[in-house]
Amino acid sequence: MEKKLINTPETCVDDLVSGLLYMNPKLCKIEGYNAVVRSDILNIKDNYVTLISGGGSGHEPAHAGFIGDNMLSAAVLGNVFASPSVASILATIRVTAGSKGVLLIVKNYTGDRLNFGMALELAKREGIEGMLVIVDDDCALPTSKGITGGRGIAGTVLVHKIAGAVAGSGASLQEVFDAANSAIHSVRTLGVALTTCTLPGVKSSTRLSAPYAIEIGMGIHGEPGRENAELPTTNAAKYIAEVLVDGTVTALTTVPFSLSKEIVILVNNLGSLPALEMSVMIKEIVDLLRSKSYLPVRIYAGPLMTSLDMNGISLSILSLPLDRQEKVLAWLDSPVTAPSWISGSVLAYTSDGILIQNNSITVANDNNKSIISSSFHMSTNTALVIVRTICQTIIEAEPLLSEYDSLCGDGDCGMVMKKGATQLHHDFETMFAESVFTIIIDCACLCDIIANSISASMGGTSGALLELCFRSMSSYFVKQVGNIIYSIETFIPLHLRVFKL
Amino acid sequence: MEKKLINTPETCVDDLVSGLLYMNPKLCKIEGYNAVVRSDILNIKDNYVTLISGGGSGHEPAHAGFIGDNMLSAAVLGNVFASPSVASILATIRVTAGSKGVLLIVKNYTGDRLNFGMALELAKREGIEGMLVIVDDDCALPTSKGITGGRGIAGTVLVHKIAGAVAGSGASLQEVFDAANSAIHSVRTLGVALTTCTLPGVKSSTRLSAPYAIEIGMGIHGEPGRENAELPTTNAAKYIAEVLVDGTVTALTTVPFSLSKEIVILVNNLGSLPALEMSVMIKEIVDLLRSKSYLPVRIYAGPLMTSLDMNGISLSILSLPLDRQEKVLAWLDSPVTAPSWISGSVLAYTSDGILIQNNSITVANDNNKSIISSSFHMSTNTALVIVRTICQTIIEAEPLLSEYDSLCGDGDCGMVMKKGATQLHHDFETMFAESVFTIIIDCACLCDIIANSISASMGGTSGALLELCFRSMSSYFVKQVGNIIYSIETFIPLHLRVFKL
Repeated sequence: MEKKLINTPETCVDDLVSGLLYMNPKLCKIEGYNAVVRSDILNIKDNYVTLISGGGSGHEPAHAGFIGDNMLSAAVLGNVFASPSVASILATIRVTAGSKGVLLIVKNYTGDRLNFGMALELAKREGIEGMLVIVDDDCALPTSKGITGGRGIAGTVLVHKIAGAVAGSGASLQEVFDAANSAIHSVRTLGVALTTCTLPGVKSSTRLSAPYAIEIGMGIHGEPGRENAELPTTNAAKYIAEVLVDGTVTALTTVPFSLSKEIVILVNNLGSLPALEMSVMIKEIVDLLRSKSYLPVRIYAGPLMTSLDMNGISLSILSLPLDRQEKVLAWLDSPVTAPSWISGSVLAYTSDGILIQNNSITVANDNNKSIISSSFHMSTNTALVIVRTICQTIIEAEPLLSEYDSLCGDGDCGMVMKKGATQLHHDFETMFAESVFTIIIDCACLCDIIANSISASMGGTSGALLELCFRSMSSYFVKQVGNIIYSIETFIPLHLRVFKL
Repeated sequence: MEKKLINTPETCVDDLVSGLLYMNPKLCKIEGYNAVVRSDILNIKDNYVTLISGGGSGHEPAHAGFIGDNMLSAAVLGNVFASPSVASILATIRVTAGSKGVLLIVKNYTGDRLNFGMALELAKREGIEGMLVIVDDDCALPTSKGITGGRGIAGTVLVHKIAGAVAGSGASLQEVFDAANSAIHSVRTLGVALTTCTLPGVKSSTRLSAPYAIEIGMGIHGEPGRENAELPTTNAAKYIAEVLVDGTVTALTTVPFSLSKEIVILVNNLGSLPALEMSVMIKEIVDLLRSKSYLPVRIYAGPLMTSLDMNGISLSILSLPLDRQEKVLAWLDSPVTAPSWISGSVLAYTSDGILIQNNSITVANDNNKSIISSSFHMSTNTALVIVRTICQTIIEAEPLLSEYDSLCGDGDCGMVMKKGATQLHHDFETMFAESVFTIIIDCACLCDIIANSISASMGGTSGALLELCFRSMSSYFVKQVGNIIYSIETFIPLHLRVFKL
């Protein structure tokens, strides 16, 4: 039994809906059902074709997070991974459908097809005009394996976006239906799971518990994928990018119309993939696509169609039909108010396919940029004697410092101080000892040189503290013109004072 | 060693930065460093106070995701959980600071304080005007435990937002500094971890591997928290909400100014808490706060300051000082272009503290809403004979159906069909058998009654399929006026045809 922040498995979807209402005051619950609808639905439902999606819970933010202007109008939530009841879908259709009709966007699972289909049949008998599209973007399994077609997974979100934009433009039900179907035909998705998902109240599966075990093409309910594999110990990100890109690109060759090289990608976090790894994967996927001469013009990335706590990622590629490329991009770019939709990254290319990006800025990395000079000076010989004496004292004190630190700290103080003193001593002997002339050095410069030696050798907190003190001393000399009143407080910047040095 | 989608632990932050640049073309990398800055920085840096944040990586989307208009100007990225180098911070300050000055927003960790502090000292010597604030919102540990103060965690994001809005309004460096400090003083955060986090290339800790072990107040680098506890097996969400609300509310009593009951909350996903559980937690936290007469007027929720793959959640409460409540809310509401900032949920209350929300809509749940009638009728006696015969045949065929299904399916077909037939038989005998009159029934109604019996008894795919067929037949009768041409295809809606019944 996994640790889960729920109250009971039986009530978790009810609680999820209550949370949704707090997070989005523009939502409204349909009394008696786990279904939510735009709260202004009665005002807008005769102006536009309305859109309903839904299915089992556990895929948040899908689908309720995508309700808003130019996207979904309502969502029906089943229990975790279970299709919603016909009654709840029918109630949602009754509230949501207006005079321009309603489109149901359904993922290709038997339960969803039957329940949404049944509810639509019943609604039609009441005179409601409605249509239904089935999303089957998962290309994990060869279609020869069955007649059921691909499962509906993350690509569904792109279908919501496109259908929502077309509906929002005032199109007819048939036009919205056609645009949704065209999007469905041009999107293919492949996922990889590093772990399975665990349902509330159910024991965790040990299916992927082996150290490097992964499953390519696992479904978003943990259904069997294409094959088991091992994650390589290095370049795992590059390997997974290859698996995902090869799988989706190959699947797209069966698309029934001419495609351009410009594509839209959606990188979906299946639940618990760390954001750092998401960013690494985006880099590898885009690099690989570009190396194959594909030009990703929009990138959408984030947890959009999750599978509870599954650690994994999926890649959806939406091909842009040559004859309506601009149209599809405009639909994707149209603004929405749905809280969980994310604006895509817009990439542009030259006619030669070179990415146009202002992605690097160079700074003069010159630590002597400002010439340090003060009105205080010292001969290098004097400085050398002082530094030599101090350094030797510190080096000799190493055992004592180590002993004291082992009583109140982690015992490395002596070694760290010795390391710094040795470096400083060496630097001074190299810079100053061999000169036969009397050289006068600016005290601000001197402090800076000491700080440089400390910076190059000590590390850790004590190194940084000492370096900071000497930099501050240097600045202090620069600023002073008359008499200097030496006080240790003078050299400690405000933000260090709580350390009570 | 956890499975991680990276290439090597050494290069993962470089790759992370490359991914960031693909995801946000308005960013620009500072050559030679893992630091990113708005690409229009040279055009805007003399118009506004600029803001820099940063720290160790592993907390994505913090901090680079918060770069944009009215929020951060630049972010410096250290290695995973390690402070960035002074050189990289200094380079970032040089690019980012303009004539109005630069503010560094630093989380309260020794390394960050020292390195950001040092870089600022060096920058100041070059004539750059800059200030630094330290965020210490974590209230997990009593301040009596040390002199270092609270750690900087998720509340930092609210400081970014407020400081960014004030800077964006054209305020002076001192004003931005004051607003940031005021936000720091009024925000307190407490987290709970269900698992620790695992660094790239490092073995997973077994610290929280016991079945219900959790740690209250764990830091975002896995630092020790306030106490270990056990997650209750029921009402875990309510329990954690209590821990978080009590901890933060108590900590806020030490805030040095008068507070209103209206508060802002930020519910942070520490990395791998499923979105479903996030929504349940939001419900419980807001319910509990309201029961204590606190009025959350803004709710921000999502993975904002993560800790790699840590499963856990933190609650930040920002108190609104009575004398500048409206101002702070306006700063929080000001629009930003930072891709990872999330618009908060805006909740309003009556003067009696009642939540103003249009959160429920009632639909007439009447399956007889449309009265079914067709021009085709049959006597109930005839219907009873037909149904009885068919049902008895199906019941008797159970062993044969089971045998066939066990050869090509999961073997339950016979039992499911028998269950449906038994129910249908029973329903018909009850409804029609005892009548002594000849009753004429509408054929559309008859089909609907059969569908109801199937719906109530069979379940599964076969039940839904059969129900759908009878509903469709019923609709068909309703629509027909003249002769009926019976064809099985007639009764199967389009979206079921791929099943090739």
